[in-house]
Amino acid sequence: MNSLKISTGGKLRVISKIKVNKDNISQVYTPGVAEVVKAVTKNKKSINKYTWRNNLVAVISDGSAVLGLGNQGAEGALPVMEAKSVLFKELGGVNAIPIVLNTQDKEEIIKTIKIIAPSFGGINLEDISAPRCFEIEEALRQELDIPVFHDDQHGAAIAILAGLINATKVAGKNLKKAKIVVSGAGAAGVATIRLLHAYGCRGLALFDSRGGICTTCVNPTKEKEEIARMNSLNNPSTTLREALRGADVFIGLSVGNLLQSTDIKTMGNKPIVFALANPIPEISPEEAKQGGAFIIGTGRSDFPNQINNALVFPGVFKGLLEKKKKEVTMTMEIKIAKAIADLIKKPTVNKLLPTVTNKQVPKAVAKAI
Amino acid sequence: MNSLKISTGGKLRVISKIKVNKDNISQVYTPGVAEVVKAVTKNKKSINKYTWRNNLVAVISDGSAVLGLGNQGAEGALPVMEAKSVLFKELGGVNAIPIVLNTQDKEEIIKTIKIIAPSFGGINLEDISAPRCFEIEEALRQELDIPVFHDDQHGAAIAILAGLINATKVAGKNLKKAKIVVSGAGAAGVATIRLLHAYGCRGLALFDSRGGICTTCVNPTKEKEEIARMNSLNNPSTTLREALRGADVFIGLSVGNLLQSTDIKTMGNKPIVFALANPIPEISPEEAKQGGAFIIGTGRSDFPNQINNALVFPGVFKGLLEKKKKEVTMTMEIKIAKAIADLIKKPTVNKLLPTVTNKQVPKAVAKAI
Repeated sequence: MNSLKISTGGKLRVISKIKVNKDNISQVYTPGVAEVVKAVTKNKKSINKYTWRNNLVAVISDGSAVLGLGNQGAEGALPVMEAKSVLFKELGGVNAIPIVLNTQDKEEIIKTIKIIAPSFGGINLEDISAPRCFEIEEALRQELDIPVFHDDQHGAAIAILAGLINATKVAGKNLKKAKIVVSGAGAAGVATIRLLHAYGCRGLALFDSRGGICTTCVNPTKEKEEIARMNSLNNPSTTLREALRGADVFIGLSVGNLLQSTDIKTMGNKPIVFALANPIPEISPEEAKQGGAFIIGTGRSDFPNQINNALVFPGVFKGLLEKKKKEVTMTMEIKIAKAIADLIKKPTVNKLLPTVTNKQVPKAVAKAI
Repeated sequence: MNSLKISTGGKLRVISKIKVNKDNISQVYTPGVAEVVKAVTKNKKSINKYTWRNNLVAVISDGSAVLGLGNQGAEGALPVMEAKSVLFKELGGVNAIPIVLNTQDKEEIIKTIKIIAPSFGGINLEDISAPRCFEIEEALRQELDIPVFHDDQHGAAIAILAGLINATKVAGKNLKKAKIVVSGAGAAGVATIRLLHAYGCRGLALFDSRGGICTTCVNPTKEKEEIARMNSLNNPSTTLREALRGADVFIGLSVGNLLQSTDIKTMGNKPIVFALANPIPEISPEEAKQGGAFIIGTGRSDFPNQINNALVFPGVFKGLLEKKKKEVTMTMEIKIAKAIADLIKKPTVNKLLPTVTNKQVPKAVAKAI
């Protein structure tokens, strides 16, 4: 069955826990529901007990950075948010509904989400372009009393760290000392660099579409200035191809078809290639293999070693909502990455991480929170 | 089972139509979902084919007029919106999700709903206080390309007209000539008066909490000026109690415990009393009976003759979404009221209308659209 056929008629449904009949309707609806209203207004916290909110996440996007396809608008984002919501429920047991926004103005997005927030137990931000996504997440985290998680940042970063922990184990490399070339400084790129640096990685060489990321670049964003200080590249005019020479790891969070097999050939011993752009990776697994890649990961479900935030977000909200926690700290993110990596006792070249559909993953992630 | 128990843990769930496994995840999610994004951005209308939006209604409230309990805020409104969403699905087969808004500013409400609108196939406004509700509905109807329906107005008006058609039949009265005293000029009151007038009723005596509604009242809203012209009361200083003398029908859309049995005693032959305030009616059915009421209706599910918008909204959206229509006109509203009334072939004093849980109701309502 292809994707258009699977999506025809939509993938989600709302159902009622209670079958309504003439005997119970006065309890489900009026006048009985007035009792519930009074209980909630008397004690606002009881809203989590007496409504479905406690196990409900809004999967929200403005459609500005949908998958690797770029700005697709609200309508273009809806199928992806609906698919994410399917995974929330199927993998993590969390109710989730897709909300797409007909605005890409930062202040309007923040305001809209604050206004609809009392309807939900958590907010999962998705496919919002950088650098707006950083400010939107930060503002909402400060102003709302429910968890706010920008999946493209933290979900990707955690999955990548989990993958690298096992990949360096298989390749016999020291992750903290490995030379890691990162392409992309969008939401996922910035969060991955921050997390790898927090983990202790000191061999990071960082690139965006304009070249090496440096503190003296023209018009850097706040985030690029921050990650530039984590860059181990001495010479900012070094090209991505030059940096790949002798490198241990390539992490692509940028655009499809960026590299060729000849680029991989210049990398060091047992090179690890995570080409994570979606749906088209920076280099196809076949070509990376031709270039001598020892371990290859993509973001896709149809190749071995899927390094995807779907390993993370269902379990993160399962854990946050069950444990009534509001935030995922950097320390927690490292703990989650280790928990995912640990699910594969003996990782191999073709089996770094558990599959996204493995039900043990969200349980382990939630436990790590 | 009581209402608090029924509501514990929430009443709604989101489910996936597709059971996700390692074989289909690449079609449900990435990379396959990119195909769906491309189809939707190529042809925006296909969003209704390839997402769940086509059969999805947002049940939206700002909590400013929850049931008859007044301003309860966003949190206080959530249990009611969740209960309404249960009825949407259980009765009409329409997926619905409750959205409560953390603002009561008219412009902010309009803007927020416009921004989240691409997520839905229709907007059901609920429990928003008058007169803001009129302007909010009007603005959204003009600016959105999906149906917008303020249930408290039109749902109530249609259910009341249906009830009156059968009540006057049972009592042998001519509805168009009957003397009808209406208490309340909120959302439901204004819409009911407009619909009864459009139906041809010319004996309307109209009151709000300040007395008889007249064109010369102090600071009338646009809507009160409009309905004042439908008022058959000659003297605006006539009181509600005075107007009830000899009246055929009382319709209460105001506050609980407004009348006593002595007031009903002054009404004309075979008086019809629809005391529809929720959860406490303007007069209890027992007391109305003591006063000699011939037919008694309330808004509640636990007395005979429930006159409630739950008879209307599930079928209205079922019809609008299935037939891809955007608006419910006044002519359509009268047609719907007749269709509901017609479901009871031989109405009696204690059986005016079908019960809210009768599955034939939404079918008949949808057919009338």
